[in-house]
Amino acid sequence: MFDSVRLPHKLAKPEYEALLEPMRERLLDAQFELAERKSKAILLLIEGSDAAGKGDALNRLYEWLDDHHLDTLSYGAPTDEERERPLEWRYWRDMPAKGRIGLVLGGWHHRILRERLEGDLDRGAFEAALDEINRAEEMLSFEGVVVVKVWLHVEDDVAEKRLTKLREADGGIRRAEVIEWDDVKSAKGHAKLRRAAFELVEKTSTGVAPWSVVAAEDARYRDVAVAQLLLDALDRANDGPAARAPIPPKPTEPSLGLPRASAIRALDLGNRANPDAYSRQLRELQQRVSELTTSKAFERRGLVLAFEGNDAAGKGGAILRVRAALDPRRFRVRGVAAPTDEERARPYLWRFWRNVPRLGHAAIFDRSWYGRVLVERVEGLCTREDWMRAYREINDFEHQLTRAKLCVVKFWLAIDQNEQLARFEDREKRAAKRYKITPEDGRNREKWPLYEEAADEMIDRTSSPESPWTLVESNDKKYARLKVLRTIVGRLENALG
Amino acid sequence: MFDSVRLPHKLAKPEYEALLEPMRERLLDAQFELAERKSKAILLLIEGSDAAGKGDALNRLYEWLDDHHLDTLSYGAPTDEERERPLEWRYWRDMPAKGRIGLVLGGWHHRILRERLEGDLDRGAFEAALDEINRAEEMLSFEGVVVVKVWLHVEDDVAEKRLTKLREADGGIRRAEVIEWDDVKSAKGHAKLRRAAFELVEKTSTGVAPWSVVAAEDARYRDVAVAQLLLDALDRANDGPAARAPIPPKPTEPSLGLPRASAIRALDLGNRANPDAYSRQLRELQQRVSELTTSKAFERRGLVLAFEGNDAAGKGGAILRVRAALDPRRFRVRGVAAPTDEERARPYLWRFWRNVPRLGHAAIFDRSWYGRVLVERVEGLCTREDWMRAYREINDFEHQLTRAKLCVVKFWLAIDQNEQLARFEDREKRAAKRYKITPEDGRNREKWPLYEEAADEMIDRTSSPESPWTLVESNDKKYARLKVLRTIVGRLENALG
Repeated sequence: MFDSVRLPHKLAKPEYEALLEPMRERLLDAQFELAERKSKAILLLIEGSDAAGKGDALNRLYEWLDDHHLDTLSYGAPTDEERERPLEWRYWRDMPAKGRIGLVLGGWHHRILRERLEGDLDRGAFEAALDEINRAEEMLSFEGVVVVKVWLHVEDDVAEKRLTKLREADGGIRRAEVIEWDDVKSAKGHAKLRRAAFELVEKTSTGVAPWSVVAAEDARYRDVAVAQLLLDALDRANDGPAARAPIPPKPTEPSLGLPRASAIRALDLGNRANPDAYSRQLRELQQRVSELTTSKAFERRGLVLAFEGNDAAGKGGAILRVRAALDPRRFRVRGVAAPTDEERARPYLWRFWRNVPRLGHAAIFDRSWYGRVLVERVEGLCTREDWMRAYREINDFEHQLTRAKLCVVKFWLAIDQNEQLARFEDREKRAAKRYKITPEDGRNREKWPLYEEAADEMIDRTSSPESPWTLVESNDKKYARLKVLRTIVGRLENALG
Repeated sequence: MFDSVRLPHKLAKPEYEALLEPMRERLLDAQFELAERKSKAILLLIEGSDAAGKGDALNRLYEWLDDHHLDTLSYGAPTDEERERPLEWRYWRDMPAKGRIGLVLGGWHHRILRERLEGDLDRGAFEAALDEINRAEEMLSFEGVVVVKVWLHVEDDVAEKRLTKLREADGGIRRAEVIEWDDVKSAKGHAKLRRAAFELVEKTSTGVAPWSVVAAEDARYRDVAVAQLLLDALDRANDGPAARAPIPPKPTEPSLGLPRASAIRALDLGNRANPDAYSRQLRELQQRVSELTTSKAFERRGLVLAFEGNDAAGKGGAILRVRAALDPRRFRVRGVAAPTDEERARPYLWRFWRNVPRLGHAAIFDRSWYGRVLVERVEGLCTREDWMRAYREINDFEHQLTRAKLCVVKFWLAIDQNEQLARFEDREKRAAKRYKITPEDGRNREKWPLYEEAADEMIDRTSSPESPWTLVESNDKKYARLKVLRTIVGRLENALG
């Protein structure tokens, strides 16, 4: 989930300063309109790693916004007054009126995460508590309160350095913010915190109130990114541009001009296979896949492969190399084109459910259930609400597969635009392959940035420890094929123990 | 929850026969329109007590509907094919296409209930599983599948008799339907089943897919009631009368003319207090309330009283008698009139949350958070979706209060229309009370049947073991006041141990 947050996210001082004035102006305009309309309230929740600068981010918003219409909702250990009432009371007491923005520190998620870490909640109770949160936020959304959830992330080593500094600066006094860290500083505690936080972000990212994870190491980037998220929410609440996205949407410039970190663009597409070793390596990997999928242990497992990627990225070729390693009686390849009448008459996941393999078998999907958040999103075939809720639905779907002992392996095959053009031209030349060129190919190229943004968000929101995305640098087809096979071998070895 | 199901629900043969033809015609028309439009599918889940006649009810629908557009989705122990796939696979495989109706026996709720009873799911895991169901059904609803959930109920003694008969008839062979009963036939097992079933119905009654509980002792009533629910769903799916309810709605005739069982109408309003003993009894009860609420144990508890009822039913008078028994420093009375500007600017529960008492204190609400499902529903101040989701929201709210050690006691004060008219006239005569008559009183009288239906549904959907409704026969004010006080004493004695 949100692996892209580990990419470098920096905003140099000159760019930051160029952004500042127009950003403040837009924030103030939007805030003013919210206050005028009085039809929505906004709750901006700032959560995240300790020492990620939650308080600093909040203070910055106070600088940038008009504080007359701003409330801080900050929660530490309950006061006497709060202790004598239901836990939820303090949040309700502080509920901002329509027209106002509430900035929340240490909110309801924080409490549940803490109880989980302190061992007060077992797995089931933890999930039930998260679902109670989801229901409450859904209710708020129906009642005109827009919930914006920001998770500030810094890596452990950065956090540890900052905390050491904080402790020294405070002369040993623990700040309210520095809560869990000291309690969980053992390696085991860290791992537990990371796991629980990850799960919290996954399970409380709903269609109406998804988390956005923001890289918080660079304070300038962090603050502008938070402001950007608030501005988008304000726009939607005010029925502004973000609410009235054209269908199909135009390529989006991040509205503040903040550069978007992209896991896909960060790939080194120069990666190449050693052409001399390729055939041997391919053969060895295929041999290993074959061994694993015909092993005794595999009979109580199964394999689900999903291939997504740019047009002409080489999905077909990669799939061919995987097929060659599998027992033909035990696998099926499913090409996912436009849905049939039968499929269109049912919920979008049906066409994939009907092709879920039985134990001991494999299914290969050439394009997959991710169509909802890729092509359907970009081409405007479904509404924003539809694709926003789809992330959670897809996570549930894959969780149900994994729970049933199926190993879910997902590939994004990435090429750059030059390579794509070259491959299109090459195809045109080779008449035999002509049928593969459809008018869509051209259209999709124009929408490259939109598809890239959708794919980046998809990867962030649906990579989980049990079914992570594998990004495959595919400008060199051989490199891509070897990486695909190597990934399958690794995942299977893990799963089969 | 659904206490009204224990009322006698019978349909005599002549009435049944008079209903049959028009009902079949309407069902077939609606089914035909669904098949023509192909914009929605319907899943009708038939669950409930063993021996409630789930299979019979399903067979009846096959008689009444056109079986060309009807699918049966019946699930017992998984087949070999199903066992080798994710648990959810079999439901997906059978998903009816748009235009079709699927009748589900032994569906997803059944499995979870069984796992809970067999001890495979602890409390948290049970709740998490129910929430997974809720998410799945919400997704189906977004994707054009209308989920209608019917819970057939018979009392334990009736079930036991029927099962004995079945067992004899089958010569000792257990029918597929007779599953849990034999396993849980100890008294403890029964109680556990009842509790788990109750909780399942409460927690999976969502705004998009609420349960309807149907009294199933009388087969004629049962079958027509199920048909009625299906017809309503078809109408909504076809955008028919039920979907286009006028706002404010007209008094509803149950569309098939099936008499509606009403917990409120079943009250014996002739109940009267003994006038000679009244003063003494009142004093004694007030004394007891006073003792209990000033006890040491009460300091770690609290009391939340909600009064609802017909206009002029005597809420004010009853509240006065409760107040007299309470320490004035420790309670507040909250009259709930039209919301203030401040309140209107926030979610509807906010005005109640802000008045939640602290431990050791009491709050009395003269009208309450139930306004959403009473006056707002009947006067068309919110949409059907809004009040349908409110039941679950209110159950969550009261659960949060109860979890925080507050004792929630809810009263419905009932009078009949003659008594109400007499009281209105009496008020008019007594000029001093004139200000109490508002134009709304007259309007509300016209809508009596609508308010009654709303109140009955409210009582059914929000009575829980931890915060049940108490219905108070209030034609005799003295009787009502004593019952109110006696109820408070009983609940407090229970809570304080």
